[in-house]
Amino acid sequence: MEEAVKISYILVRIVIILIAAKIGGYIAEKLKQPSVLGELAAGIILGPSLFNFINPYEPDSAFQLLHFLGEIGVILLLFQIGLESNIHQLLKAGLTSTLVATIGVAVPVALGFAYSMYAIADIGFNGAFLIGATLAATSVGITMRVLSEIKKVNSHEGKIILGAAVIDDIIGLVILSVVAGLVSGAGQSIPLVVGKTILFSVIFLIASIWLGIRYLPKMYTITRPLKINRTFVFSSFVVMMFFAAVADVIGLATIVGAFAAGLIFERLEEKEHFQAKIQPMAHIFVPIFFVVAGLYLDAKALFLPGMLPLVFALTIIAVVGKLVSGFGAIGTKTSKLAIGIGMIPRGEVGLIFSAFGLAASLITKDIYSALVLVIMITTIVTPPFLVRAMKNIKGTGAISESEQIL
Amino acid sequence: MEEAVKISYILVRIVIILIAAKIGGYIAEKLKQPSVLGELAAGIILGPSLFNFINPYEPDSAFQLLHFLGEIGVILLLFQIGLESNIHQLLKAGLTSTLVATIGVAVPVALGFAYSMYAIADIGFNGAFLIGATLAATSVGITMRVLSEIKKVNSHEGKIILGAAVIDDIIGLVILSVVAGLVSGAGQSIPLVVGKTILFSVIFLIASIWLGIRYLPKMYTITRPLKINRTFVFSSFVVMMFFAAVADVIGLATIVGAFAAGLIFERLEEKEHFQAKIQPMAHIFVPIFFVVAGLYLDAKALFLPGMLPLVFALTIIAVVGKLVSGFGAIGTKTSKLAIGIGMIPRGEVGLIFSAFGLAASLITKDIYSALVLVIMITTIVTPPFLVRAMKNIKGTGAISESEQIL
Repeated sequence: MEEAVKISYILVRIVIILIAAKIGGYIAEKLKQPSVLGELAAGIILGPSLFNFINPYEPDSAFQLLHFLGEIGVILLLFQIGLESNIHQLLKAGLTSTLVATIGVAVPVALGFAYSMYAIADIGFNGAFLIGATLAATSVGITMRVLSEIKKVNSHEGKIILGAAVIDDIIGLVILSVVAGLVSGAGQSIPLVVGKTILFSVIFLIASIWLGIRYLPKMYTITRPLKINRTFVFSSFVVMMFFAAVADVIGLATIVGAFAAGLIFERLEEKEHFQAKIQPMAHIFVPIFFVVAGLYLDAKALFLPGMLPLVFALTIIAVVGKLVSGFGAIGTKTSKLAIGIGMIPRGEVGLIFSAFGLAASLITKDIYSALVLVIMITTIVTPPFLVRAMKNIKGTGAISESEQIL
Repeated sequence: MEEAVKISYILVRIVIILIAAKIGGYIAEKLKQPSVLGELAAGIILGPSLFNFINPYEPDSAFQLLHFLGEIGVILLLFQIGLESNIHQLLKAGLTSTLVATIGVAVPVALGFAYSMYAIADIGFNGAFLIGATLAATSVGITMRVLSEIKKVNSHEGKIILGAAVIDDIIGLVILSVVAGLVSGAGQSIPLVVGKTILFSVIFLIASIWLGIRYLPKMYTITRPLKINRTFVFSSFVVMMFFAAVADVIGLATIVGAFAAGLIFERLEEKEHFQAKIQPMAHIFVPIFFVVAGLYLDAKALFLPGMLPLVFALTIIAVVGKLVSGFGAIGTKTSKLAIGIGMIPRGEVGLIFSAFGLAASLITKDIYSALVLVIMITTIVTPPFLVRAMKNIKGTGAISESEQIL
């Protein structure tokens, strides 16, 4: 079993990331902030901005491993959030969520495209479109973790945000497919790419959740008497990973699949057992994701000439574009401001977009860095404002771990 | 967050490995065999021997990830075994274990060296020595999992084997250091390398366990009132990984460190909580290790000319060399045969040795394949014989998971 990297090299990094996450989370909690903010700060401190202990822009194979462990973390997080959600309640929030998502995609794409065409030399139609698309997709992980920590996952606002984030992920990925189609040019026709992605997304979500809720309980009725050791946590983990893989294969984010898997397991009578068994793993892997997200922020890029105005303008577009999406909740007795703020964080999907743009030479490395910065800023500024906006809103539902200390 | 590999590529592999492990384990249990044998068989079927679904000899970055997840698995396994062990009982078995380990290293190294010098053309002194050394180190994982499944970890035989495996790991690694010193030549003097490794090993085990048992409970007394969320599983995981890393840094196997960490946590009053929290993760990661171990067996190498006699002879040496080590338990009321059989499995340490030999051009790729085959055969043949030899021996202690089904 030859190793490319000495195993202690990666183990030491995991240990330091976990300890830094814990310290950051503890300080954040003392400052009455969600601990996720402390974990992001831990990542920024360990990353190229300060200590340069781990540089995600010069990834070695140890970083790839860390990144993958973080991916498992965010998959576990969305699975847990699915376990905490309720499919019937989510469907009720459907129309409102769709409206919020549509506004929240249309405004940043339009403004981002227009500004890029105006302000960035030699960006080109495709590049400007990509920058707009990068600002489209909300990263539901941050918002949901904040809502979980303040126990408001099941508020009306929380459900609308969650639904809208799932929908804008789908819309966002359609846009990325369109950009990819425009780049490949000689490839498939744009209507075909658009049609296929929409079709796959809708089929996946409806079919997986419908089939899962219909047949998974029956599968458990069959396997329970087999008494295969260690079946419980094992089976939920396998189904979760499988759904994440399927989502990725058909072009959706892995977390959409993990969330769908969580929704299905929520219907099973052993729901609480699944939560209890998955939690210890989530406690370890979820913080890795947020520390890694923090690593990507390189504060030094801010000091390159012209970068500060660009980052500033794109951040304003990213924030305003989502704030106005709150008005999509028209006719409901909810805080439009809280919904808009909850939609602000961008994350893995935006980062995938900008990485695609860099790889396809649609944007330069500097603009890529600016985009990553904007994504990170939207993520970092959200939690304190979200906590404040949600303060007087009634709600229940935390990922039921907050009280567990020992 | 650019990815070298599409994430579904690795997720699908994890899902297939986990399902194959579960099916293999289930069939093995139905055949009254330990499930670890079924997991190894699952790996052989998925590997180059049959379906070639995953080829560890042409590792891509997805395989590196799988391999690392397996490493986490074996670390978790040895941590659990440490949690099940008792330092005082282990020390009582000390002299016997040392005698068993010494015989179990000396005989295979001497026979392996002599046979290689006689039978393999152009092998050279260092190559023959390396082949002997590859056959020296017992992989305690297989034996302990078997004993755990038949609930005899805490039999006299189990404790002697565990102690001897720890000691022969240390002796084995000293030998590897000697080989490395011989290869580098111009490097440090042999007595210095030998002295340093012995010193580090002894210091590590004594100091870590002594300091851990002395100070870890005090650290918990300090951190308990801080009520940092999710501290429990988190802290044990961090300490476990840290000990594994330290062991690796000073030239020992990671699992020696994980085992030491387990011994320390066994002394804490919350021992059972640690076990309960670590188990769900072990249920998922441990099978990955054994499936990956199975992947390394390439049955096709058997059909190369001259390979079958070589594999046969080295296997006989590997088996006999450890069987006679059972006589080291002279003067105890134990089954010498059971101890000898329990020492037979070779694993990660032997594979590291042979990989080192290949990298240093001490052995050819064919001999490397033969060695890997021998290592795998010793591992695969052991469980049924061990179960039979342990049948009438009294004992307690399983990694307390066997009854947990849902």
